[in-house]
Amino acid sequence: MAGRVAVVGTGLIGGSVGLALTARGFDVVGYDRDEQRLARAKQLGAIGEGAASIDDAVAAADLVLVAVPVGAIAATVVAALDAGAAVVTDVGSVKAPVVAEVERMRPDESARFVGGHPMAGSEQEGVDGADATLFVGSTWVLTPSANTDERSYSLVLRVVRELGADVLTLTPEHHDELVALVSHVPQLAASTLMDVASAAEEDRPTLMRLAAGGFRDMTRIAAGHPGIWPDILSTNRDAVLDALDQYVGALMRAREIVATGSQDELLVLLERARAARRNLPVGATMADKLVELRVPVPDRPGVLAEVTTLAGRLGVNVADVEIAHSLEGGRGVLVLIVAAIDADAYERGLLDLGYHVSRTDLA
Amino acid sequence: MAGRVAVVGTGLIGGSVGLALTARGFDVVGYDRDEQRLARAKQLGAIGEGAASIDDAVAAADLVLVAVPVGAIAATVVAALDAGAAVVTDVGSVKAPVVAEVERMRPDESARFVGGHPMAGSEQEGVDGADATLFVGSTWVLTPSANTDERSYSLVLRVVRELGADVLTLTPEHHDELVALVSHVPQLAASTLMDVASAAEEDRPTLMRLAAGGFRDMTRIAAGHPGIWPDILSTNRDAVLDALDQYVGALMRAREIVATGSQDELLVLLERARAARRNLPVGATMADKLVELRVPVPDRPGVLAEVTTLAGRLGVNVADVEIAHSLEGGRGVLVLIVAAIDADAYERGLLDLGYHVSRTDLA
Repeated sequence: MAGRVAVVGTGLIGGSVGLALTARGFDVVGYDRDEQRLARAKQLGAIGEGAASIDDAVAAADLVLVAVPVGAIAATVVAALDAGAAVVTDVGSVKAPVVAEVERMRPDESARFVGGHPMAGSEQEGVDGADATLFVGSTWVLTPSANTDERSYSLVLRVVRELGADVLTLTPEHHDELVALVSHVPQLAASTLMDVASAAEEDRPTLMRLAAGGFRDMTRIAAGHPGIWPDILSTNRDAVLDALDQYVGALMRAREIVATGSQDELLVLLERARAARRNLPVGATMADKLVELRVPVPDRPGVLAEVTTLAGRLGVNVADVEIAHSLEGGRGVLVLIVAAIDADAYERGLLDLGYHVSRTDLA
Repeated sequence: MAGRVAVVGTGLIGGSVGLALTARGFDVVGYDRDEQRLARAKQLGAIGEGAASIDDAVAAADLVLVAVPVGAIAATVVAALDAGAAVVTDVGSVKAPVVAEVERMRPDESARFVGGHPMAGSEQEGVDGADATLFVGSTWVLTPSANTDERSYSLVLRVVRELGADVLTLTPEHHDELVALVSHVPQLAASTLMDVASAAEEDRPTLMRLAAGGFRDMTRIAAGHPGIWPDILSTNRDAVLDALDQYVGALMRAREIVATGSQDELLVLLERARAARRNLPVGATMADKLVELRVPVPDRPGVLAEVTTLAGRLGVNVADVEIAHSLEGGRGVLVLIVAAIDADAYERGLLDLGYHVSRTDLA
């Protein structure tokens, strides 16, 4: 596809996107309020040119990708929209408060904003750790809302897939709940476990010598740079507290089982967890066979979000989405490309929501 | 050194010890109540010969290593002592109840039993996963009690060091407290996290697609075979409950920090955990320079345990220990070889306990 993309915030994620898109033939312009970081991004080839302001960066871009800390995203997205950005997306770890804030500040222009969150990280820091292959085989969440324009969503989805990532579409709120459980609470749990094990001054050297592979695995993410986490944890506070309560509740149930000494119940818990862990997919990769689903849709707000979040809820991997608008207006056709393995479940779900679906198996 | 070692229980750990000692020139005889497993161990070269009974296995052995499930250790150790075993050690993950049970059943003969626990594991199962290098660079805990005979301890320490492991000596009770925190609770925490994340049927496929590297690291040990864990967790129940309470208490304090929204306090917690994780030694390896400490000791019970558990408490790596008994009787000299880097702290600790210490730097 190619085109011109503006990357605002040229750190690890922004730099990695820049490297990957440059390699795929895109023109990448960067902006960072830290001039040194911007210069370094250019030196590393993560951006083709550095802009002097957000306005300059977004002027001729088909897409603006905002890769700044969570607390600064909404204001930066609004600045990009105000500067006339065609389509804006972001890469923040928390979505609902950001999407809500952008919609509150710019009710109309926010149709051109699609929230996003790549589920890929690195132990590296900053643009020097940027890697063109960081997103290959990873999951990238998009969170269109009822307000999101279909063409904006479709453009972001295609660019993300150029990066080698698979797109998972969720509502902003659902995203925040799930990442609290699968990312934010695990980070807190790892840091807390490490902290407890190192708390007793007298025992510390001994404990550290006893720490074998399992403990090392469990605390590995505690070694990462904590800079981004306070911002993420406080922005996603309610979902984090809820997930933490679920985890502590489950630990207390496990405690009860240990206390009663029921080896059978312990085995049930451990076997269930083992089966779940073994079912964890190694990488989210698109199946070979694809199916095209064509869905006539009314031209009303929220249709895209409804259809794509159904895909997210069912775990359906959407490879591509396209909007074919009918000439008569008022209606269009949504063309969805999904993995063949997911097509039956998705088609049933769409029928249940009252849509008509026509299906074509692709080669 | 070499000699004859009997391995009772020829699974993953027993088989790995057998392979390593065979490679170092020891004669290894095996016994397993499962005849097929015993035959497989011989086929794989983990034992030189299979014995038909514990009595046959231990008859001519310098050392008997008991590598059976935690719940069966005490009875097996007693059977070996009754069969006239010279020295007996074990490899169970829980020590205090096992040591106490052996001492209760055989108050006198238990002087020839030294509890042990290699802090090394494998994702493999059974003797087919046995590996001669499993213990190289790992920590192997020994738990002599006030009742333990010094020569038995010294022999076990030397054989363990032949396996490439570094010995850490702790009291049985202290061992159980520490492994609860660094191994048993992490196992429960990993399985519980996996269980919580997979509990919501509807969200499961989505959550699994969102699970990135951190979640994978944290739940990796939940994928292991759970067979041994109910036994371990119930045998070490009190210490596990105490460590679990510490962990849950710390999670609740972290919850409070998130709830109040204090980014500064969150950063303090995360930074402290990060520093501790970064200080986790990569492998317990003996320093190049060694120091010999000679300590005249009265010939009374408990001296060895006192001196070696001091080493454990200070994190001092004891490379070798030897008892030079004085001809006059009633007193002896304990010769301890420790890493030069640990020698000052250890010497001070011994002086504080009222011992006299003479020190020689070795080449």
